[in-house]
Amino acid sequence: MSTTHPLDEALQLRHSDLRVGLFTGASTLAYWNMVGPFGGTTAAVLLQAVLRHPDLLGAPIALTVNFAAAVGEGEFEVQATPVRTNRSTQHWTLTQTQLDANGVRQVTTTATVVTAVRRETWGAADLAMPQVPPPAQFASASFGPSGVAWIDQYDMRLVSGSVPTTWDDSGHHSETRLWVRDAQARTLDFCALAAMSDVFFPRVWLRRAKRVPAGTVSITTYFHADAAQMAAIGSGFLLGQACGQQFRNGFFDQSAQLWSEDGQLLATSNQIVYYKE
Amino acid sequence: MSTTHPLDEALQLRHSDLRVGLFTGASTLAYWNMVGPFGGTTAAVLLQAVLRHPDLLGAPIALTVNFAAAVGEGEFEVQATPVRTNRSTQHWTLTQTQLDANGVRQVTTTATVVTAVRRETWGAADLAMPQVPPPAQFASASFGPSGVAWIDQYDMRLVSGSVPTTWDDSGHHSETRLWVRDAQARTLDFCALAAMSDVFFPRVWLRRAKRVPAGTVSITTYFHADAAQMAAIGSGFLLGQACGQQFRNGFFDQSAQLWSEDGQLLATSNQIVYYKE
Repeated sequence: MSTTHPLDEALQLRHSDLRVGLFTGASTLAYWNMVGPFGGTTAAVLLQAVLRHPDLLGAPIALTVNFAAAVGEGEFEVQATPVRTNRSTQHWTLTQTQLDANGVRQVTTTATVVTAVRRETWGAADLAMPQVPPPAQFASASFGPSGVAWIDQYDMRLVSGSVPTTWDDSGHHSETRLWVRDAQARTLDFCALAAMSDVFFPRVWLRRAKRVPAGTVSITTYFHADAAQMAAIGSGFLLGQACGQQFRNGFFDQSAQLWSEDGQLLATSNQIVYYKE
Repeated sequence: MSTTHPLDEALQLRHSDLRVGLFTGASTLAYWNMVGPFGGTTAAVLLQAVLRHPDLLGAPIALTVNFAAAVGEGEFEVQATPVRTNRSTQHWTLTQTQLDANGVRQVTTTATVVTAVRRETWGAADLAMPQVPPPAQFASASFGPSGVAWIDQYDMRLVSGSVPTTWDDSGHHSETRLWVRDAQARTLDFCALAAMSDVFFPRVWLRRAKRVPAGTVSITTYFHADAAQMAAIGSGFLLGQACGQQFRNGFFDQSAQLWSEDGQLLATSNQIVYYKE
């Protein structure tokens, strides 16, 4: 058995000699979703390329990942480019590519990242953590599509808004709250936070109590946490909350938050999701 | 006097002969902010490059704009590239550049856009419009930083959460509601919606009742409206709502929504904003 954490395995990137900021990696089956890796893992991989780049300034503030096509099995390339470096902020563009069946390199994913050197300032938390019982009071339950590998990489404890058990079109809200941590203990970091921002099953399933094909098209995550906060959290549970806002003509948006167990808002995330019918 | 609407003037892009998707435009003083054009206008200009591109598929779904540096007066270039075109979705990357004082072309802005051919599906609105009195019951009031040109391009009617009149550190919330439309009548479209998503003054001013330097670093807008809805709205008022979520070590995020007067959620938008102190 490998002693490397499955997320760290997914995040393994090799510097290419071809040019600065070009990395090669490979999709891992541990985080496989239905037709490619879990989108959260892909987001984490792209962020990792920025964190590994020799010219990095500061820490991640914002990450937008656009899922242009399913990532296939095997090798991929990620090009991370710092297109503008200011005194305290840095702007990145990223492209993930893979060879198609004809040997032509195709774009599977694009991303932008903003990093910054943060300074201590006044602060306030205007989005209080919902009052819910602690994780120990909930059973760890596998849910979501069966046979999907990535689900097993997380210890998720549903507080409210579970995947419907009866698909009878009876849904009337789209809010899920859950405790989440890596199934195999791992200290929280920016890549893990980027991945966990995408752990929520499609809101449309809950809202309709109907399982229709759905997939994230674009996700944006803002990082409020810093490295010291995450080190202190270690492998502890985060409280995740996700809610749909508008469902219309094939797309809905989801607003999500991740808090530490002691109520610090670590990340806020939004995504737009395709759905059928 | 020009008969062109100031927004249409700002959106004027010329095709460059150099390569497909390369446009040239110029920043206009009508939307000038403190150290460059209003970010909403810049977002609209980048979206316009996609809408003008000969290979466009469908209509805008998602727009992320990263403000890497202030756009200066005069000419700029926008390169819009469709990096992946699927059956019903298309993924775009964009870069806006300007020559610096040394004649070197520098990146001022990056963006990604997703467009899609939408089909009629089931839908639901889970974010109801707040109940507020109609726009006619509020006075049109110029607010925000005085001497900033772009403010005058909008007819904004503050419902709640105005810019503090006393800067005494007494703030205790960060929610603003306002009615907004173009000051000079113009039928709503995707570019106008992108711009209006950014009309809210910095949440940190309201939250602290303290005016500190602040500027949007990255904004993401999801479009729920289609062209027919916007044509029906015409030049009518939209209800905008914006709220800060987490303020910490130099950055806060803002969640915003825009509804038509009859309660249709047209766009949801999030941004991360730098602030000092």
